[in-house]
Amino acid sequence: MNAMTGTISTGQERKAPGRPRNAQADEAILDAVLTLLSDGQSASAVSIESVAAKAGVGKATIYRRWPNKEALLIDAVRSMKGPIPELAGESVREDLIAMVTANRSSRGREFGKVTACLLPELIKDEELSRMHQAVIEPRREVMRQILRRGIAAGELRADLNIELTVLMLSGPSMMQGLFGTVTGIPDADFPEALVDALLRGAAA
Amino acid sequence: MNAMTGTISTGQERKAPGRPRNAQADEAILDAVLTLLSDGQSASAVSIESVAAKAGVGKATIYRRWPNKEALLIDAVRSMKGPIPELAGESVREDLIAMVTANRSSRGREFGKVTACLLPELIKDEELSRMHQAVIEPRREVMRQILRRGIAAGELRADLNIELTVLMLSGPSMMQGLFGTVTGIPDADFPEALVDALLRGAAA
Repeated sequence: MNAMTGTISTGQERKAPGRPRNAQADEAILDAVLTLLSDGQSASAVSIESVAAKAGVGKATIYRRWPNKEALLIDAVRSMKGPIPELAGESVREDLIAMVTANRSSRGREFGKVTACLLPELIKDEELSRMHQAVIEPRREVMRQILRRGIAAGELRADLNIELTVLMLSGPSMMQGLFGTVTGIPDADFPEALVDALLRGAAA
Repeated sequence: MNAMTGTISTGQERKAPGRPRNAQADEAILDAVLTLLSDGQSASAVSIESVAAKAGVGKATIYRRWPNKEALLIDAVRSMKGPIPELAGESVREDLIAMVTANRSSRGREFGKVTACLLPELIKDEELSRMHQAVIEPRREVMRQILRRGIAAGELRADLNIELTVLMLSGPSMMQGLFGTVTGIPDADFPEALVDALLRGAAA
């Protein structure tokens, strides 16, 4: 975990792991990737050259930090998510709200519309898909653990479909990110409203 | 409504409205648009020329049917959705399941991954965004009407947040379309599973 950028190592070896990283350059490079994608470039069209030009750094600066474009793309996606929070572990409701909140960092709120567009490309490319799974799967697994704990404690229905419930937490969040204020619910209140609606159910 | 293609008129004047439309050519043209988008082209990169080449028709054939690229793109998006179903109007649950089911046509299931990627581009372009609203807003409005009817009949909670509930019906569907079998729920069973989970709530 890099405390300065909020990014987590991709698990790929950096070319020069001993060299100190420059948090400001990291930010500029990640923002450049997300800006290119926001401007309508596909992930396959983004190149180290175009990112370097956009960020105002040399290609070598990027290659010192990321071994290849795939690692850079995935780190850009990762930087849109907040770190997995420390969970209080007491109330299932509180923990789910914390997880939904952490689904988006401030960069995620700025570039949130990018994610939905990237997903299809990430899924199609075997290597990217594997790397993307490494970003989202730990978050999904924490969600599953909270839900399982809730079932065991009798707080949640015993017949709850865990995978469907994870989708019901992540899908509406993505839509809120895409359509912004379509719900009339401010982003800050969205996680609590979603979790409460999910727990209570719509039936009278 | 064109019964052969399942598409609804964009409300734009066709260049030659008296000319009989060729359903097979329509299908080939719409499939060409969606194939180009699936192959990673952005909506802005798609051109009438590239669609004509992909579909194996002349540009004139496309222009006889659609006045411009925007109308063609929106019809391609529309063709991924089933027609708004006739609702029985008895059970809120049944009507919601019918609506979630109609969210995807067979073409939508084939090209479902495209939609998420198009959304950010559609939202960014003012003209496309307006046309896209014309496709999705009537569906959202039917959903809202069902929910309001449910509240009035005492089937749904009186304090239900209608807009959030619409998002909780559409967001997970989009994720299921993107990630396919991630939930382990077959596509055919998904609408019922989602609506029941939404109605019942996750709390014990």
